[in-house]
Amino acid sequence: MAHVRITRKIEFSAAHLYHNPKFSDEENRRIFGKCNNPHGHGHNYVLEVTIAGEPDPMTGMVLDLKELKDILQREIVDRMDHRFLNYEVPELSGQIPTCENIARVIWKLLDPKIVHGHLDRVRLYESPDLFVDCTAGDSA
Amino acid sequence: MAHVRITRKIEFSAAHLYHNPKFSDEENRRIFGKCNNPHGHGHNYVLEVTIAGEPDPMTGMVLDLKELKDILQREIVDRMDHRFLNYEVPELSGQIPTCENIARVIWKLLDPKIVHGHLDRVRLYESPDLFVDCTAGDSA
Amino acid sequence: MAHVRITRKIEFSAAHLYHNPKFSDEENRRIFGKCNNPHGHGHNYVLEVTIAGEPDPMTGMVLDLKELKDILQREIVDRMDHRFLNYEVPELSGQIPTCENIARVIWKLLDPKIVHGHLDRVRLYESPDLFVDCTAGDSA
Amino acid sequence: MAHVRITRKIEFSAAHLYHNPKFSDEENRRIFGKCNNPHGHGHNYVLEVTIAGEPDPMTGMVLDLKELKDILQREIVDRMDHRFLNYEVPELSGQIPTCENIARVIWKLLDPKIVHGHLDRVRLYESPDLFVDCTAGDSA
Amino acid sequence: MAHVRITRKIEFSAAHLYHNPKFSDEENRRIFGKCNNPHGHGHNYVLEVTIAGEPDPMTGMVLDLKELKDILQREIVDRMDHRFLNYEVPELSGQIPTCENIARVIWKLLDPKIVHGHLDRVRLYESPDLFVDCTAGDSA
Amino acid sequence: MAHVRITRKIEFSAAHLYHNPKFSDEENRRIFGKCNNPHGHGHNYVLEVTIAGEPDPMTGMVLDLKELKDILQREIVDRMDHRFLNYEVPELSGQIPTCENIARVIWKLLDPKIVHGHLDRVRLYESPDLFVDCTAGDSA
Repeated sequence: MAHVRITRKIEFSAAHLYHNPKFSDEENRRIFGKCNNPHGHGHNYVLEVTIAGEPDPMTGMVLDLKELKDILQREIVDRMDHRFLNYEVPELSGQIPTCENIARVIWKLLDPKIVHGHLDRVRLYESPDLFVDCTAGDSA
Repeated sequence: MAHVRITRKIEFSAAHLYHNPKFSDEENRRIFGKCNNPHGHGHNYVLEVTIAGEPDPMTGMVLDLKELKDILQREIVDRMDHRFLNYEVPELSGQIPTCENIARVIWKLLDPKIVHGHLDRVRLYESPDLFVDCTAGDSA
Repeated sequence: MAHVRITRKIEFSAAHLYHNPKFSDEENRRIFGKCNNPHGHGHNYVLEVTIAGEPDPMTGMVLDLKELKDILQREIVDRMDHRFLNYEVPELSGQIPTCENIARVIWKLLDPKIVHGHLDRVRLYESPDLFVDCTAGDSA
Repeated sequence: MAHVRITRKIEFSAAHLYHNPKFSDEENRRIFGKCNNPHGHGHNYVLEVTIAGEPDPMTGMVLDLKELKDILQREIVDRMDHRFLNYEVPELSGQIPTCENIARVIWKLLDPKIVHGHLDRVRLYESPDLFVDCTAGDSA
Repeated sequence: MAHVRITRKIEFSAAHLYHNPKFSDEENRRIFGKCNNPHGHGHNYVLEVTIAGEPDPMTGMVLDLKELKDILQREIVDRMDHRFLNYEVPELSGQIPTCENIARVIWKLLDPKIVHGHLDRVRLYESPDLFVDCTAGDSA
Repeated sequence: MAHVRITRKIEFSAAHLYHNPKFSDEENRRIFGKCNNPHGHGHNYVLEVTIAGEPDPMTGMVLDLKELKDILQREIVDRMDHRFLNYEVPELSGQIPTCENIARVIWKLLDPKIVHGHLDRVRLYESPDLFVDCTAGDSA
């Protein structure tokens, strides 16, 4: 019997900027380029959340998609949509809000909430041309 | 030498509905929501079929794409395109035709037909925002 | 000053079939092909609704998008989403539910409801490869 | 002989927020919803610029696309990409940076710069589901 | 009653190069850039063909899509698909095969063949970021 | 801690043809179909390059995207964009330039150049409906 994973895609819009206070202004500009603009800029982020599991024989479903929708609304959309990520998402505090770091925060927020099946992958698109995948680490 | 997998995408249109006769009418409505509408509704399904294998040095190809096209036409399009999945696809009989279950039926139909290379993944999109992956199970 | 039109895209899933009782069975099969399958099939319809008008200087908006969302939910999604168009949409009664006819019904449903600005175009995709545009007719 | 228009698509990322100081805080929240968040949020804007004209018989081109690329870089990307539109784009000063208003500013910036052929349409996507078209006004 | 136009999208793959023998080699390189490479390069062209007309009350259709498919196969795909446009498409002989010129050739090939309804627009994408529209000219 | 992979997408346009001098003309036509056209044809190739690694705590990045952009420009775009792959890319010499073989050449070109993180996957789209993945082989 084949393994099954189901993926739901959602979107949110947010602003961010890259600045590390441990770097000089010149280093920040050189390393982060236009992303270092102090006013910030923004993106339409596209998030794909993949759950692995065995479909329930009674429903044919790995998990209830309404339940997943509620989790994604509460954990991700309410936290990040129409927000300035540097200032309004405490989980990113002290980190550069790169696509890599945002995807890892999303993984940490969602992983404990998925109880039917388990979180298999988080894919976050910052733009159609750039995306990051998170999957379970070695000790997971 | 890198491993190679090749993926072909096709589309088909079908109708379906979700109803489990072991559930009460109220349970069917609560669990399946609008998908329980007794008249049914439909989707443009998008299917990605991935074959793993070693390219033939004489042709540069993992498998003959015309051969794959014929298999996909005969096994999937002829069976499912412009069909009502609950009533016209015997392989789904007695199952809720969720994206999970349709993808598993597609896996079972295609797996024995792929003889040059082997079936690596079936991905079925029910909509741009929802898709299911099937890959070889533990005992495969 | 340039003319402004704003377009909102939404999606709905529905089933349909093509059959004209004035044609013989053989004519129905020849003219409508696989769309004549008596069980029906379905699509993910994508609808683009375009409103022309002058942006309000106080809001910068042609119309309130929340108001448009409510109109689209009430007039289109509640009527057509997860429905079998032949049996459940009275406005299509007695018509073949082609993309052309569905788009015209949508035009007629929306046109009187748009009171800030005016309806400029309805575009309905039956699939990524086939769509219909409705625009105001000669006497409109 | 058919009329010809050529369209080039580009992208830029920017942050914005909606707030009209003539409205009360409560009105701002009610009218602009999440877009009124004082920290701002952002989008990947997609811009399609359409030029109408007669192809040059010697080159087969309505205009030199390298020339158009330079105009779009100088007039739009350098001004708006990785910017906070409310604070960094003087042309939007005193306006709500809605998709409608940004598209009109882009029209006004580009129209005088297109000297081979003429500007026919500016289409600006704020997201895949929302876009604005500007075309020449009545007196243009 | 709203006006109706229906659009069918197809694809073809072709090679081309830009070279005008009336220009010097240096002019060819400066004007056409990488497109002047004498070996040529290629694209996946996407063609949208739009037909305007009144839906037939008996079929709900502006025209028979199977008939349109046959016209597109015979007039466009058989001529241009998997071809080197400069050497194998006589209609383009003596012209630079820019997107503008290819679209005009397609217009001229299709216009006399559309007898149910009339050809309203030809849109040809050379890439997702560059496309050309042809519509009926002034004297048409 | 979740594993992180970052993917950058780029595009290039190229021409190619399939012909194996060890096959008879008839075999070449039968096996390669329209791809055997001696003039060649072409595609807009889309390349996704995936790098696995640990984000640097100081920058939040697996690798500097400007550095990756330079590698992709030098190793892939400069070699393949606006080229006829059979005649102008020595790495493909003596091979049929199928999507499989091009993807393997790209893997071999990029793998030694990625020094921050490591190359995890090369995905090459020949068209939206056909793509090839390369991943590290058994002995890698």
